[in-house]
Amino acid sequence: MQQVAIIGIGQTPVDEHWDKTLRELAGEAIFAALKDADRTSAEGLFIGNMMSGMLSRQENIGVLIADWIGLPGIEAYKIETACSSGAAALRAGIMAVSSGQMESAIVVGVEKMTESLPIETTEGLATASDADYEAAQGLSFVAINALVMQRYLHTYGWKHTDFGAFSINSHANAMGNPFARLHEPITQKDYNQARMIAAPISLLDASPTGDGAAALYLIPANNLRPGAKQQITIAGSASAIDSIAVHSRKDPLWLFAAARSAEKAYSQAGIQPNDVDLFELHDAFSIMSALSLEACGFAERGQGPRLALDGQILLSGKIPITTRGGLKARGHPVGATGIYQVAEVVQQLRGECGSTQVEGAKIGMAQNIGGSGSTIVTTILKACH
Amino acid sequence: MQQVAIIGIGQTPVDEHWDKTLRELAGEAIFAALKDADRTSAEGLFIGNMMSGMLSRQENIGVLIADWIGLPGIEAYKIETACSSGAAALRAGIMAVSSGQMESAIVVGVEKMTESLPIETTEGLATASDADYEAAQGLSFVAINALVMQRYLHTYGWKHTDFGAFSINSHANAMGNPFARLHEPITQKDYNQARMIAAPISLLDASPTGDGAAALYLIPANNLRPGAKQQITIAGSASAIDSIAVHSRKDPLWLFAAARSAEKAYSQAGIQPNDVDLFELHDAFSIMSALSLEACGFAERGQGPRLALDGQILLSGKIPITTRGGLKARGHPVGATGIYQVAEVVQQLRGECGSTQVEGAKIGMAQNIGGSGSTIVTTILKACH
Repeated sequence: MQQVAIIGIGQTPVDEHWDKTLRELAGEAIFAALKDADRTSAEGLFIGNMMSGMLSRQENIGVLIADWIGLPGIEAYKIETACSSGAAALRAGIMAVSSGQMESAIVVGVEKMTESLPIETTEGLATASDADYEAAQGLSFVAINALVMQRYLHTYGWKHTDFGAFSINSHANAMGNPFARLHEPITQKDYNQARMIAAPISLLDASPTGDGAAALYLIPANNLRPGAKQQITIAGSASAIDSIAVHSRKDPLWLFAAARSAEKAYSQAGIQPNDVDLFELHDAFSIMSALSLEACGFAERGQGPRLALDGQILLSGKIPITTRGGLKARGHPVGATGIYQVAEVVQQLRGECGSTQVEGAKIGMAQNIGGSGSTIVTTILKACH
Repeated sequence: MQQVAIIGIGQTPVDEHWDKTLRELAGEAIFAALKDADRTSAEGLFIGNMMSGMLSRQENIGVLIADWIGLPGIEAYKIETACSSGAAALRAGIMAVSSGQMESAIVVGVEKMTESLPIETTEGLATASDADYEAAQGLSFVAINALVMQRYLHTYGWKHTDFGAFSINSHANAMGNPFARLHEPITQKDYNQARMIAAPISLLDASPTGDGAAALYLIPANNLRPGAKQQITIAGSASAIDSIAVHSRKDPLWLFAAARSAEKAYSQAGIQPNDVDLFELHDAFSIMSALSLEACGFAERGQGPRLALDGQILLSGKIPITTRGGLKARGHPVGATGIYQVAEVVQQLRGECGSTQVEGAKIGMAQNIGGSGSTIVTTILKACH
């Protein structure tokens, strides 16, 4: 199997982009990635997106975007796995390049969430859960996560305030990321006083939505040529699923699909968790940070918050997480998030992160979660020597 | 690049399935394909679907369906390219298997269209066109195709009634297909008297919607073992795009993406059009039959209807088309259609088609069209010797 390299990245700011359509946002990220890769075209386009049909009344966005960026005649697809659509599109791009069917591919994640009514967005996000058995009960997506968090607090005896360190870290790191949605540092006092959204999830546990796009340029690793930039290969890439409904799981506090995809990716990369220099995890809600750290081998079960409280998730800690702000502060334009995460790992391995640089980072991991832990993609990147 | 073989197929009848949910329909086709392949599991699941979010308020259907069929832990994705979502999912499955990342994959196309209000379905289908520049003008999907047909009649001087032979052939062939939506033979008189939907497209030019699912089981061709059934390999598989809006094309009467994908597929398979024994083309509207035949090298430009009028598209003709009823009579559950087409070609190459068998068929082609010709996938299958 041919290894794949990432030679270009592009990101738009995550924001309310009232002046840009879906295709324009995607195009902006793609043009940035093309420029970064020093290329003008590619053989395939893989788009991660969840809600273009429901919120923008536009499907067929593979063609829409390829047409807009001036690449007729290529192959173009939309890939959807709820909030992990971005990383799923990356999986498809990796398979296309590693199969030898393409010598180059652009992967772009894009989501436009802020032009629709809030109720439409909430309804749209609920389609990530089981429509017949969860959403039909009136459970919104945040409500499902609130039930999981409440169970976690009950089972392991943590207090809600113990989760503040996750959000404080993400907000602090976003200060160094020009593409982040929120540039507002927060304190433990802010966290403690934040208003409840769906108890025990407060406003400062939940990631903000937003419009955004991020892109990657892939080529076979064999085709890498000496260049000015640190070269990056995809050392591990794996996806796994769990049951879609949380109530169907043996253990609602164990991210089976995170553990399984991470094990596969570690094995492909030939590494252990302690070899990972930074971890862009999927902190859509602060509870997910704890569950991801536990499933991926960075903390014992029920001990995720301990890592945060001990400062081990900071840039200087044992396992720095959400180094560019994470979903909590960079923002969570759902289908784009998985590509933002990988682009951010690339920036870290290139040493381009300024005030939020993890010193000497050589191996970085990203994990993108769709649904309430139902479909999870883990990606491990390595800087070439 | 590893060649890929199809060792199992499954289809549900195309119908109004009021008693079955999306996941049940997909499961039914998958279980049939597993049985046909004599397998119980697979490493990946690729789902072609267009409108589950808009019509069933359910995204994340990769997990939904994998969970339902009892295959937790596998990889599962939804792939969307409007009405060619089925064949796009097949492209993704082929890349996954030929990359060596999977030893087996299930590809399923599924669409549930008849539970929603007709206006919702019409709105949903319009998302295949350019929402900002076509749908925003009030153009439905059938209206766009009507404009193309009107232009064709004007340019080449055909009468509307000259297209009847396409629909008569599809309806006749569906009589031999138990999975077809319509089992009603039609005459030229019926065609001439059919009521207009969007002039010049009448009810008997347009394919019916429906609920349905079809599935394929893929393995590396190297792993084929001698068996009772005729073995089938994918000799050619290619996808191409055109501009999304018809008004952006240099020539609205030339299916650029059909020609380009067919050329690539012919080249991969090492064949010419006259080597093709049958062609499952995308007759969503009768005009598309003519345009596909022309773009793929079976007829001169403007001469597609001539083939039909001369009987060359019949089972006994030079290039039999829609041998199991086509979109016109088998039905067009949009995201499933591309997989029905390929399953039907497999049936022909295995010699399982009874009264609609193309005698001695060794090479079959399928072409699935998304949007008004904007994204097109061509697949060529060969019977192994």
